[in-house]
Amino acid sequence: MKAVLQTTISNSRGRRPWSSRVVVRAAAVETLDVTSTIALIEKSINTIRFLAIDAVEKANSGHPGLPMGCAPMGHILYDEVMRYNPKNPYWFNRDRFVLSAGHGCMLQYALLHLAGYDSVKEEDLKSFRQWGSKTPGHPENFETRGIEVTTGPLGQGIANAVGLALAEKHLAARYNKPGFEVVDHYTYCILGDGCQMEGISNEACSLAGHWGLGKLIAFYDDNHISIDGDTEIAFTESVDTRFEGLGWHVIWVKNGNTGYDEIRAAIEEAKAVKDKPTLIKVTTTIGYGSPNKANSYSVHGSALGAKEVDATRQNLGWPYEPFHVPDDVKSHWSRHVPEGASLEAEWQAKLADYEKKYKEEAAEFKELISGKWPDGWEKALPAYTPESPADATRNLSQQCLNALAKVLPGLLGGSADLASSNMTLLKMFGDFQKDTPEQRNVRFGVREHAMGSICNGIALHGSGLIPYCATFFVFTDYMRAAMRISALCEAGVIYVMTHDSIGLGEDGPTHQPIEHLASFRAMPNILMLRPGDGNETAGAYKVAILNRKRPSVLALSRQKLPQLAGTTIEGVEKGGYIVSDNSMRNKPDLILIGTGSELEIAVKAANVIRKEGKAVRVVSLVSWELFDEQSDEYKESVLPAGVSARVSVEAGSTFGWEKIVGSKGKSIGIDRFGASAPAGTLYKEFGITMDNVIAAAKTLL
Amino acid sequence: MKAVLQTTISNSRGRRPWSSRVVVRAAAVETLDVTSTIALIEKSINTIRFLAIDAVEKANSGHPGLPMGCAPMGHILYDEVMRYNPKNPYWFNRDRFVLSAGHGCMLQYALLHLAGYDSVKEEDLKSFRQWGSKTPGHPENFETRGIEVTTGPLGQGIANAVGLALAEKHLAARYNKPGFEVVDHYTYCILGDGCQMEGISNEACSLAGHWGLGKLIAFYDDNHISIDGDTEIAFTESVDTRFEGLGWHVIWVKNGNTGYDEIRAAIEEAKAVKDKPTLIKVTTTIGYGSPNKANSYSVHGSALGAKEVDATRQNLGWPYEPFHVPDDVKSHWSRHVPEGASLEAEWQAKLADYEKKYKEEAAEFKELISGKWPDGWEKALPAYTPESPADATRNLSQQCLNALAKVLPGLLGGSADLASSNMTLLKMFGDFQKDTPEQRNVRFGVREHAMGSICNGIALHGSGLIPYCATFFVFTDYMRAAMRISALCEAGVIYVMTHDSIGLGEDGPTHQPIEHLASFRAMPNILMLRPGDGNETAGAYKVAILNRKRPSVLALSRQKLPQLAGTTIEGVEKGGYIVSDNSMRNKPDLILIGTGSELEIAVKAANVIRKEGKAVRVVSLVSWELFDEQSDEYKESVLPAGVSARVSVEAGSTFGWEKIVGSKGKSIGIDRFGASAPAGTLYKEFGITMDNVIAAAKTLL
Repeated sequence: MKAVLQTTISNSRGRRPWSSRVVVRAAAVETLDVTSTIALIEKSINTIRFLAIDAVEKANSGHPGLPMGCAPMGHILYDEVMRYNPKNPYWFNRDRFVLSAGHGCMLQYALLHLAGYDSVKEEDLKSFRQWGSKTPGHPENFETRGIEVTTGPLGQGIANAVGLALAEKHLAARYNKPGFEVVDHYTYCILGDGCQMEGISNEACSLAGHWGLGKLIAFYDDNHISIDGDTEIAFTESVDTRFEGLGWHVIWVKNGNTGYDEIRAAIEEAKAVKDKPTLIKVTTTIGYGSPNKANSYSVHGSALGAKEVDATRQNLGWPYEPFHVPDDVKSHWSRHVPEGASLEAEWQAKLADYEKKYKEEAAEFKELISGKWPDGWEKALPAYTPESPADATRNLSQQCLNALAKVLPGLLGGSADLASSNMTLLKMFGDFQKDTPEQRNVRFGVREHAMGSICNGIALHGSGLIPYCATFFVFTDYMRAAMRISALCEAGVIYVMTHDSIGLGEDGPTHQPIEHLASFRAMPNILMLRPGDGNETAGAYKVAILNRKRPSVLALSRQKLPQLAGTTIEGVEKGGYIVSDNSMRNKPDLILIGTGSELEIAVKAANVIRKEGKAVRVVSLVSWELFDEQSDEYKESVLPAGVSARVSVEAGSTFGWEKIVGSKGKSIGIDRFGASAPAGTLYKEFGITMDNVIAAAKTLL
Repeated sequence: MKAVLQTTISNSRGRRPWSSRVVVRAAAVETLDVTSTIALIEKSINTIRFLAIDAVEKANSGHPGLPMGCAPMGHILYDEVMRYNPKNPYWFNRDRFVLSAGHGCMLQYALLHLAGYDSVKEEDLKSFRQWGSKTPGHPENFETRGIEVTTGPLGQGIANAVGLALAEKHLAARYNKPGFEVVDHYTYCILGDGCQMEGISNEACSLAGHWGLGKLIAFYDDNHISIDGDTEIAFTESVDTRFEGLGWHVIWVKNGNTGYDEIRAAIEEAKAVKDKPTLIKVTTTIGYGSPNKANSYSVHGSALGAKEVDATRQNLGWPYEPFHVPDDVKSHWSRHVPEGASLEAEWQAKLADYEKKYKEEAAEFKELISGKWPDGWEKALPAYTPESPADATRNLSQQCLNALAKVLPGLLGGSADLASSNMTLLKMFGDFQKDTPEQRNVRFGVREHAMGSICNGIALHGSGLIPYCATFFVFTDYMRAAMRISALCEAGVIYVMTHDSIGLGEDGPTHQPIEHLASFRAMPNILMLRPGDGNETAGAYKVAILNRKRPSVLALSRQKLPQLAGTTIEGVEKGGYIVSDNSMRNKPDLILIGTGSELEIAVKAANVIRKEGKAVRVVSLVSWELFDEQSDEYKESVLPAGVSARVSVEAGSTFGWEKIVGSKGKSIGIDRFGASAPAGTLYKEFGITMDNVIAAAKTLL
């Protein structure tokens, strides 16, 4: 009987015609087996439910409702459908799973536990939501092997899933050969009502439909309950109709609680639709099994309480003690470890054959997915001298991107409908589109938030792809939630943010960033870089490429800037460095500190003040985070503690600059919103001028 | 002939059956008039086009494409449909218009100019996008009378329009009486492909459909062009289907360029549908009239150039010099000043009659829309003593909200599906819903970004409504773009942001704000308030209510906090103040500075250090912005320059604190992401403890 089930399942996972329904209905003689099979499946599903219930109960914190409602689809996915290798969670060709409704993470921990992942042992389940555990309150890829992305903030997970599916489609188109599908996996996602309400999910799903991501299969946990109660109070749209409008295939599983065959059939149907992503709306009962709390808000985000746990045990016929996995369930799931090893071995064999036939492609592919880069890639970065033509750093950025794309096969990306302003087109490539997925220019449309989260997904696909994305710097406000997740989940996304100050001019204050540099300098694990010319832009790209575990934000100018003497890539790598100096023994009379487009002002002011016999040092502070990481000796060599005469100049908020200029120093910046006028006028009116720097300096000399 | 047109129009604006199409087709005898009428209308439309072309050309900066394509619908709206009073742009009962595609602002400036608004004279058109002009690069309500909201960042305008329509529906339900529709206006909006792609527009439109905002009529400028080229490259969804899914009535005007009657009929149909908002998809040609640039990206965001301007003049038969408004067009539009005055006078008369019949309602209504508050409203704020029970500031916030809602008829708002966590329900009111629009609890669903922009719309409705909205503090990242516009456009929205630190505990780093306090302290014109107990929470609300021209962000704790001695509403109003002190003559040995939940830690540490014979001052720095605004004398009295022994404690990024503690001081905070564990554990592990404050202090004493 168990054998029957396992054979069926193995067929399924082997991607041969999938037939459990056929088995179930084929012949009366099999009825006993089938009944037992269903009983075992339900036992497995209840195991998932109770692991979630018990862990939340022990922590007295967490969200039991979703795991209880989604256990059936979770079981079917991890036990019957998905291809993965528990002992190598990073096997390249695994199916990806994203729990966009991340608060239900006990579902995923329970599944990883049953499937045999070493990251979620019984003791990990018992330390759910505790300090140092591998089972934090929301799924975190950097804490738990087997978790693909970091979710919790709603709507972002489905966008991550779009990024994962994009990566698969792109790499498959670039590297697969007939008979050698070395890139071939599905991306599954569970999202809830909350995810559906968030704008980012609509943005991402519009793109998924546009791109025809046929191997993206999303389960919409349609349980009609959100935190504030019945979704009737705020969410009465027709999700089905909307997704049809977005170009998705839509299936409705009306009984997600016990309609296992319905769920299976839906997945089969979804896989058969190859040119569209599929949304499977699965109507479930939140907190299924809890006699008094199911189908209510109260089961969403709190422990059931001892009494209701008992009642649920009673109701579902669950006689076991907390955290118990019955032997037959354990035994049933035990095949995933050997099966997973086989799946990976098969793929390795296929890859070896591929390598024999397609040597060059295989070499590039293997290097790419290993995360290595061709030797000497950084030599492709352009170099500039003071004689090189003045240019906007957004244009210099384009030179870097195009130079790097030639040597880095993993570099791909694009803009949120501002490619011609952000200067982000890779000229030697076409557009990544439904029918040209091998191309590397991604057109995100005006969808900044989804863009960021899709790039997180691409980065966390773990296949060596280096995603960049672009918009005006001020519109980081639209994607800040995704950027924060980049920083948290260690996704080395490169954010190419142009028009980085009032220097953009006439578009006015809605388009002029003021507080944005400060706001990213305050964010953990993200590099805020503001290069001032060509060499610094090249340096910023070197840093951004090398930092695969933290995102980089490049703030770039719209306006032309001169190529300065003394700027270097090496300097940028240290975050702050001396651009010019006429002092002796590390004792300048004055230190002028600039970033980006205002570095030029600092340089010019220094030249004037030096003529008056003063020793003036100019420091470029292109990245505060990198500078902070340097040794105390290095920092002292750039900004000696004994020199308090310091003036900073930056066309942005002065917030935070006290740290650099000290209590006695002065900061020239803008602590109000900008205005609509030509850039030159704005610099003058807001006092971001050489004269003001000189005047400020003189009060300190 | 002109008379015929005017009569027709006056009928329309008088809201009697609108019949220009009937007139047009009624009888052969009217053909001449009709032809001339159409000719005049086209002349008016071309006037709008050329005012936009000329202004952009003179500025050599701007976006001519949208005004050229949308001039027909713009003309019909402002000349035939909308009810407004040019000489009183703030007349309460005016129809509202929002240009969500704000880059096309020359359309609106041209219309305001023709309609007779004093804010946009010929010289203003000629100084488009120049320093100090009334015609900035995007529409800014705080610069230009007649502009309702500030747009440019895409997608937000339609959400503002939803807020304006919500305000109308709410006030109409509260104050209108049979025969006395003192609140009765439409909200019109033009949005483009860019707005449609942004997630916020889907969020806002989902709510508009849910709420059945029948008097919201949005024109979707369907021109198939966005900055990166044809929308085919990134935007192929069916917008019509999506909006049907969102519960909107959808109409398609296939010929938006010359199909004037189609546009008129669509508006008529939209008005007839009273239980749903209407999307009129108007297919237009961007840059209509430009022979070489129409229907291309090149006309979107740059001046046409002298040669193409000439070619367009030729093509549209426009012999006039730049900025010329032909006399017949001028004369045609001239009626709007007297008509507008009449419309307002009629409304005033209606209001006077209403006042006679419904004295109490009228008194409240008039006071409300005048922006005044009942005398002594602030006395409703609760007061606390150290003996009052410890409580989370989110709960104390709910006490304030409920106390204020009783005395402030304009207070309304809600949460993004976290009402029971944010504690924002007004207990004496029901939900604002389609059929109960008079209620004051707004259920935004999980749609933070739309929530912020809808609240901006409510605030800028200018009817005395005071909107508040709520989510977890970390999710300000989802709505930051809207919050920045609150700050810029002077909308006094109250942001009730709970779970404001690692103190939220187990939900982990995705939910724990770190850099958020700093990120708002760096933003211009927004008040970041972090109260530490009941009195401070009351003070924060007093400040938030009084600041009608800048938004307030209240960071509130999830966890219980004691009521502290020495906290006061008056202190909060000064931003920073002394909570306790045992020093003499403003010369403490040490100043401990805390905010919010960490103020308690500072107080406790001070008590310990005082026992060792030191003079210790504890300062609550609840709002840096308010403290900055105090006199130098006051600031010196709180933080005397001579005292450099300063320690700050705040469970967030230390970024920016050097300004307060100085180069010699110490800041205790968290400069990494949080973690998932019980709150007490996190405080200990991250070192936000009394012991650490004491240890830091001792290094300075």
